[in-house]
Amino acid sequence: MKTIDLNCDMGESFGAWTLGDDAGVMPHITSANIACGFHGGDPSVMRRTVRLALQHGVALGAHPGLPDLVGFGRRDLAISPTEAFDMTVYQLGALQAVARSEGATLRHLKPHGAFYNMAATSAPLAEALAEAVYKVQPELVLFGLAGSQLTKAGEKLGLRTAHEVFADRTYQPDGTLTPRRQPDALITDSAQARAQALRMVQGGYVRTQAGQEIAIRADTVCLHGDGAHAVAFARELRAAFEQAGVKVAAA
Amino acid sequence: MKTIDLNCDMGESFGAWTLGDDAGVMPHITSANIACGFHGGDPSVMRRTVRLALQHGVALGAHPGLPDLVGFGRRDLAISPTEAFDMTVYQLGALQAVARSEGATLRHLKPHGAFYNMAATSAPLAEALAEAVYKVQPELVLFGLAGSQLTKAGEKLGLRTAHEVFADRTYQPDGTLTPRRQPDALITDSAQARAQALRMVQGGYVRTQAGQEIAIRADTVCLHGDGAHAVAFARELRAAFEQAGVKVAAA
Amino acid sequence: MKTIDLNCDMGESFGAWTLGDDAGVMPHITSANIACGFHGGDPSVMRRTVRLALQHGVALGAHPGLPDLVGFGRRDLAISPTEAFDMTVYQLGALQAVARSEGATLRHLKPHGAFYNMAATSAPLAEALAEAVYKVQPELVLFGLAGSQLTKAGEKLGLRTAHEVFADRTYQPDGTLTPRRQPDALITDSAQARAQALRMVQGGYVRTQAGQEIAIRADTVCLHGDGAHAVAFARELRAAFEQAGVKVAAA
Amino acid sequence: MKTIDLNCDMGESFGAWTLGDDAGVMPHITSANIACGFHGGDPSVMRRTVRLALQHGVALGAHPGLPDLVGFGRRDLAISPTEAFDMTVYQLGALQAVARSEGATLRHLKPHGAFYNMAATSAPLAEALAEAVYKVQPELVLFGLAGSQLTKAGEKLGLRTAHEVFADRTYQPDGTLTPRRQPDALITDSAQARAQALRMVQGGYVRTQAGQEIAIRADTVCLHGDGAHAVAFARELRAAFEQAGVKVAAA
Repeated sequence: MKTIDLNCDMGESFGAWTLGDDAGVMPHITSANIACGFHGGDPSVMRRTVRLALQHGVALGAHPGLPDLVGFGRRDLAISPTEAFDMTVYQLGALQAVARSEGATLRHLKPHGAFYNMAATSAPLAEALAEAVYKVQPELVLFGLAGSQLTKAGEKLGLRTAHEVFADRTYQPDGTLTPRRQPDALITDSAQARAQALRMVQGGYVRTQAGQEIAIRADTVCLHGDGAHAVAFARELRAAFEQAGVKVAAA
Repeated sequence: MKTIDLNCDMGESFGAWTLGDDAGVMPHITSANIACGFHGGDPSVMRRTVRLALQHGVALGAHPGLPDLVGFGRRDLAISPTEAFDMTVYQLGALQAVARSEGATLRHLKPHGAFYNMAATSAPLAEALAEAVYKVQPELVLFGLAGSQLTKAGEKLGLRTAHEVFADRTYQPDGTLTPRRQPDALITDSAQARAQALRMVQGGYVRTQAGQEIAIRADTVCLHGDGAHAVAFARELRAAFEQAGVKVAAA
Repeated sequence: MKTIDLNCDMGESFGAWTLGDDAGVMPHITSANIACGFHGGDPSVMRRTVRLALQHGVALGAHPGLPDLVGFGRRDLAISPTEAFDMTVYQLGALQAVARSEGATLRHLKPHGAFYNMAATSAPLAEALAEAVYKVQPELVLFGLAGSQLTKAGEKLGLRTAHEVFADRTYQPDGTLTPRRQPDALITDSAQARAQALRMVQGGYVRTQAGQEIAIRADTVCLHGDGAHAVAFARELRAAFEQAGVKVAAA
Repeated sequence: MKTIDLNCDMGESFGAWTLGDDAGVMPHITSANIACGFHGGDPSVMRRTVRLALQHGVALGAHPGLPDLVGFGRRDLAISPTEAFDMTVYQLGALQAVARSEGATLRHLKPHGAFYNMAATSAPLAEALAEAVYKVQPELVLFGLAGSQLTKAGEKLGLRTAHEVFADRTYQPDGTLTPRRQPDALITDSAQARAQALRMVQGGYVRTQAGQEIAIRADTVCLHGDGAHAVAFARELRAAFEQAGVKVAAA
């Protein structure tokens, strides 16, 4: 029986500002990537998010970001591998302590935004990030873009990894995502997005815009926590997997 | 045989900015209070400071501060007990992970600046802070002003505490420090400061400005990491303790 | 003919986070207090907010806050008068430049949250804040709690001031607001809030909880930009003033 | 008679942290680039720096940086032209107000660190930055790397520009600086650095490492405010210019 994990970025509110419908989405996912204060999240938001995840039996993951609050960690920042290592250790440790204070432990780590993208293509950054996980909590599952430098770096260190796929993004012949600035980057039809997710998980391949089928490893699907249809899409995708006989469980 | 700990705030540099002579002072102390990023310190400074302490066999401690970088955590901020709890958990966890990535563990926690002062007099803040230590790493030694709400709160939870005294500050009849704004708050003569430290540790009392002797519990003496004479004073105070037959060791 | 100004805090979004229904409220007010980046607002939000205000002919005002982003500037911070002066100058200048780059000028300044409250009761902080306005743009109208240290400090320097009143807060016999932690601090019935506003503007008095009528000067009424009924209340209050023959215009 | 400006980054301390020997260097320069709070500087440091510059008759300039305090604005950050515009307006305005509150006005603007480098090569960022100056204070002199996109963008808008050269950096055949990571990037011999500066100012050319002479426009020379020899080098360079009959004055 196939198994798939459904992950979503959570806890990205900050102080007086709310972002995302965490309470609405949490019941439908299996892994919560919890912001750790650099791009979003603050110590109190982190605690509330850990509690919410625990109420729903959702696995806890650290979601470290670049130190760019006003840019929400979405802008590339020219950090060194040492800085990548240090900021991952710091943010991971902060969330570990929040979890511990609630009697829980973390299960995975997934970098956020530009940090995720940079670690997908830069081997030195990916290795630094994986090394941080290895040195702090080697039993964590490292989440990265399927087939990226990040999953490679994790595997080289003997970490468990989860290859991440996107239901609502189109793929290029080389297995990378179509850049967002291109017109056909997003799959806006939710039935089509569900179909792509099922194909990747059950069939192990994705169909490119040109119609080519390319192999892809799908351990976890990325969901979105905001937007008008976030909750509905999460619920429907989960139902589609279950109807198709795919087990939905944390990676 | 009496034992005393010598502690000093360390790792309070930030990014391109350097503060304090950590390398000069570290050889002479037994406990390093390492800033955790809120009032000073950053993930890379934290790592360097942990390494420096380990090289000198100095015990590692978390030194959480208020989120007031421009004010260096020295200005009172009206935080709630919940916020005090959450920001302590977060900062403690961040430093734990840095230590773990260097194969080490923490031994104590001492709050910084205004956070230290607020927790000395406010029972609700002190209890929240102690609770954070208890929930995250209950074997830590909690450092607080001798006889303060903070040491009380730690003891109520069964934490080990270290009562902190100051060699270079004068004391009031009720055992509190003379406020800095008063003219006689500081002891600037280093021989006199050493004498006061020895009296507190060996005799268990301190002499107030009015000449009264009051009982004080002295587990750890606070040293300063900056200023022209910081290194010399640390060296001389340690030598004075050793000559007097007091063992100098981490609390 | 009586005149009243309706002011509201605006531009308190930050980066990816949205706060308040600025577009919904702006058509109904006459003065926008625009956050300047310390407690909310960022350079891009500031520009968008200035443009929105200009589209609706709403007067532009600086809304400087304490440097406490995660606390949204709502927590007292023990700043010195010099720091109050410097942070007011800085934030006021930043918004002036945004306005200038849009071909506009500022008309008023109102401090935010804890800064507003501290300047209402502390004469040294109030004087520093008023001095900053005087030194940077002396033709600005200084908004402060009616009868507070802040309006006093402004008047002493010869600044134009606007005494601010609240439609939905109850008043104490000494003319101060009932603290929020008290059960009867808020007037939740909107008809009652409108009635109080009209009484203050037309009659020049407010009725305390004990039924006593006390004199109050009302130049500007504070509206709220978030909450379910913010837009409706703003529209209705404006209509009530106009029906009662009170002119609604910037202070 | 030839004229040259000597500029130096100033006011890059932050809160409790001091950086650079501003008091030592200020007497020897003609233009101070004053940090505006994003990469260094805070409202109180800005005021002290403005006062120091005014005491020495040094021209005041804004020195806006990327919002990267821990990285001191030295790391490339993928900002959009709109963000570059907005953050320049904001920081420029903040310093204008500080200057105004001291009865002074600004004379120039020079971006800092990675912002300077990005604006030297990216036309869209350079144009956004120049546009910000044009919209806020069009009489300012825009400082940029000699022959860069930034000076070009300023000139296109009709701004006065100052082409900046470096005494202690080697140049490539295309007129750009040798990247710092290359072994021969720096001229460490101070006599050689002075000679290069004189050649650029008097002769209008610079000699590359390969011995080739290339034309360069030199309106202002960049000095450094920290390092062991900063003050001595500034004094000697100024003396060398004066002895050679070059007038030293703000651009």
